[in-house]
Amino acid sequence: MKKSALQTARAAYQPKLPVALTGAVVAVEGQPTQSVADQEDIKKLFPNTYGLPELRFEKNPNPTVGKPVNVGVILSGGQAPGGHNVISGLFDGIKKINKESKLYGFLMGPGGLIDHNYVELTSDIIDEYRNTGGFDIIGSGRTKLEKEDQFDKGLEILKKLGITALVIIGGDDSNTNAAVLAEYYKKIGAGVQVIGCPKTIDGDLKNEVVEASFGFDTATKVYSELIGNIQRDCFSAKKYWHFIKLMGRSASHIALECALQTQPNVCIISEEVEAKNQTLQDVVNYIADIVAARAAQGNNFGTVLIPEGLIEFIPAMKVLIAELNDLLAHHPEFATKTREEQRQFVLDNLSKESAEVYASLPEGVARQLTLDRDPHGNVQVSLIETEKLLSEMVGNRLNELADQGKYNGKFSPLHHFFGYEGRCAAPSNFDADYCYALGYNAANLIAAGVTGYLSSLRNLTKPSVQWLAGGIPITMMFNMERRHGQMKPVIQKALVRLDGTPFQKFASKRDKWALSTEYVFPGPIQYFGPAEVCDQPTMTLQYEALDK
Amino acid sequence: MKKSALQTARAAYQPKLPVALTGAVVAVEGQPTQSVADQEDIKKLFPNTYGLPELRFEKNPNPTVGKPVNVGVILSGGQAPGGHNVISGLFDGIKKINKESKLYGFLMGPGGLIDHNYVELTSDIIDEYRNTGGFDIIGSGRTKLEKEDQFDKGLEILKKLGITALVIIGGDDSNTNAAVLAEYYKKIGAGVQVIGCPKTIDGDLKNEVVEASFGFDTATKVYSELIGNIQRDCFSAKKYWHFIKLMGRSASHIALECALQTQPNVCIISEEVEAKNQTLQDVVNYIADIVAARAAQGNNFGTVLIPEGLIEFIPAMKVLIAELNDLLAHHPEFATKTREEQRQFVLDNLSKESAEVYASLPEGVARQLTLDRDPHGNVQVSLIETEKLLSEMVGNRLNELADQGKYNGKFSPLHHFFGYEGRCAAPSNFDADYCYALGYNAANLIAAGVTGYLSSLRNLTKPSVQWLAGGIPITMMFNMERRHGQMKPVIQKALVRLDGTPFQKFASKRDKWALSTEYVFPGPIQYFGPAEVCDQPTMTLQYEALDK
Repeated sequence: MKKSALQTARAAYQPKLPVALTGAVVAVEGQPTQSVADQEDIKKLFPNTYGLPELRFEKNPNPTVGKPVNVGVILSGGQAPGGHNVISGLFDGIKKINKESKLYGFLMGPGGLIDHNYVELTSDIIDEYRNTGGFDIIGSGRTKLEKEDQFDKGLEILKKLGITALVIIGGDDSNTNAAVLAEYYKKIGAGVQVIGCPKTIDGDLKNEVVEASFGFDTATKVYSELIGNIQRDCFSAKKYWHFIKLMGRSASHIALECALQTQPNVCIISEEVEAKNQTLQDVVNYIADIVAARAAQGNNFGTVLIPEGLIEFIPAMKVLIAELNDLLAHHPEFATKTREEQRQFVLDNLSKESAEVYASLPEGVARQLTLDRDPHGNVQVSLIETEKLLSEMVGNRLNELADQGKYNGKFSPLHHFFGYEGRCAAPSNFDADYCYALGYNAANLIAAGVTGYLSSLRNLTKPSVQWLAGGIPITMMFNMERRHGQMKPVIQKALVRLDGTPFQKFASKRDKWALSTEYVFPGPIQYFGPAEVCDQPTMTLQYEALDK
Repeated sequence: MKKSALQTARAAYQPKLPVALTGAVVAVEGQPTQSVADQEDIKKLFPNTYGLPELRFEKNPNPTVGKPVNVGVILSGGQAPGGHNVISGLFDGIKKINKESKLYGFLMGPGGLIDHNYVELTSDIIDEYRNTGGFDIIGSGRTKLEKEDQFDKGLEILKKLGITALVIIGGDDSNTNAAVLAEYYKKIGAGVQVIGCPKTIDGDLKNEVVEASFGFDTATKVYSELIGNIQRDCFSAKKYWHFIKLMGRSASHIALECALQTQPNVCIISEEVEAKNQTLQDVVNYIADIVAARAAQGNNFGTVLIPEGLIEFIPAMKVLIAELNDLLAHHPEFATKTREEQRQFVLDNLSKESAEVYASLPEGVARQLTLDRDPHGNVQVSLIETEKLLSEMVGNRLNELADQGKYNGKFSPLHHFFGYEGRCAAPSNFDADYCYALGYNAANLIAAGVTGYLSSLRNLTKPSVQWLAGGIPITMMFNMERRHGQMKPVIQKALVRLDGTPFQKFASKRDKWALSTEYVFPGPIQYFGPAEVCDQPTMTLQYEALDK
């Protein structure tokens, strides 16, 4: 493939490893660990990998030559910037241990392991992908690795290739499955270690011991670049309201980080909407009041950030959707009714509260909720264009305010959705370093002979040379949650904490940002300039460090 | 306003002036000029400013101290990256001539001149905006400055402020009006020079003597960054077709430049569609055939670039729209009909050809064409979401191909529209230098005492220190065109030339790009790295240089 000038220049970048990893290491054991909740249940489910100690790597004063190791690597789930660097770090790490070591990549996600599709990753291949975005080196996929017959099928190819360690690069679900796989392989004496690496642009895989998942830094910087550019346009033209939806369905970290970076007029945080038990109309009124207040100052323009998952966090919408799923499942004749009959049928058969919510929705959206269903017959909430839904309802609300003499402005909304633009961006210096170190460090966990561990780097607000490297037993992040009707051990998902400093900082400033236009324009990610431009971690990470 | 780290670092950038402009200059006159067409008509309309010579600035071996001058500046039309640098270059230029010179900015576009809204731009203000994106220093607007009473009204405030030169920063229409204003002020002996600067991200203000308009470089680099990121995602996930619409209604330069930079699977060029007299269905079939051919190779993913103005270039659509405008204007009772009656009415009353085109459109789009009308009663073509229209029709076509046994793949389209993301990006090094030099050079045109000139820099593919600086009589870019039923002298708009090297290069490679996936990932604009990364002009400019 033809390389861009930036790609060529960037290929030469050597990620900066933590000092502890620059030579041979020794693993220092900490105290045995506990899961974050439901300790007894989880201990029972993971008899071989529960309660292991945290590990920290320190320089080894008496290094010995390591044995060669064959390692497999899998990219699991949605793309995140830096995946290629995890793999190149892992490659360099196992070669450093012994240059006869080999790395195999399973193709298109966990399915590659099950179906025995793989490629040996040689230095020629690896060198093509250093510091690049994307997961295209081996592809990714969403096959869930969670059943024993899958594990057994995978073991066949691992045995055949002499692979004794598997590195799974994924989000909370993929690392949950990595822990289950580690436990299973340990139980049956398969002789295969399993190591996880924390990936997701959504930022919802983090906790007391994992400071950040990789990709969040780069993706939020790309989105913030675009939001900043739009804000500059908005402030120059002074005639549009930009409704900007941001990827991330299960948590609002991306929207919050982008708000901290760009200071928009409005940013909705789903977790707050849920905690305050707000309705969709509450959210609409909140935005409309800001539009009206700005209009009163002569400012008929502004920006609104919306997390992709908002609708699913609104309690009344959740109830409505559950009722609709139930109602439509029991009335197959619904499809044969006319448009008008369908609407009336829904209104007549929902609870009073849900019927009110349904009636309050713009007709197109209300209809969409009864039409588009997933293969399980459920309403497809993700198809709702929340940014358009909100702007339409804000427009309606402004008409009401105008009738009451409380609004006299112009409201011209424009809509944007940013997601795919950031998932495969070339990694920022932070993500390039973090990912490379995660992969390199995973090699050390392999050499240390452990399984069921997550590659861990801490102290991330410091320069990368000062990061602390080690391993975290994945089970220590577990709790029991209901999934598809069954209690399952899973990594607890990190939502935006309303008592955390990132949200508190935002909450303390948003009223000012709403009215006085204090846009910040971060500009594009820079790779070659001064450190304060190129090497800053996210504001979320910096503020969270204050909470520790 | 709080500045981002990049903004702060970038504020220190000193744009690199052409050598000729680094000291005092002398204006060297070339040959008298002619307009590109309709010379007699235009000469008659511009008796005072027609036929002037081109000017070139050279170093002045015997500099004298210039007189202070009061200058007004106006930003006209849509935002383009670098506008602030034109103004800071102009500021520095007139201060260099004499430090008592003053610069006044008229607010929110040409309307500021007519309504006497202005601000004096002092060095404190200017310094806040160097190398930044946006037009927010004084705002922009779309008021057309074309009537004598507007000119007279403007002259009042110019006289009051002692302004003897006005710099208008705008696109082809704004510079057309600048020439008319120059002629008028000259005719009445107003004592005010008028100088234009070529701005537009669309790239359609260029010709034999103007190599590029400013903003095109930065905007296309931002869009190419995003397209590249999406392509990397597309190539990693291997499951979506991304339909990406790009701003620019009247020409396809943006789409073409982005295609040259990113090598997508498909890029539609409106000018070619028109030249080949293609129908919408032809365009759809072209895309669907590529989707099917890729699917046959197992590649159910790809990227399609679409210029915003496509619909308006399709001859049959133009006829349909004209017929609809006419039909609906004569049948006010149309609004009272039911949905079904409306559709039938339209089908019954269009010409046979247009009725067929209308019937071939997805119903939602067809309906939209009869609903949304502008204040003049015309169909609002710009409201059509061309990217969704095309993907829907491609999906339909693929179903036909599947029925014929010619397609057996999956087609999952996603949609994007990029425009506002690039118009106010911080200028690239090229645009930062070009804009600053355009403004600085405008000061020299003022000092040279000329009017009706466009600030001109040529040799733009060379490093900026080697650029040639001068002035072009705006009338030499004129021809006569019908506007609102009247023949008017206007700057000829530059469409994509199908015989030009940029298009030819694209055309020679697109079949290969369609099938073999040769995506390029340009990455974000860099300001501090190696020259080959930071200082490259657009491929359009580089290829056009070959045509000269």
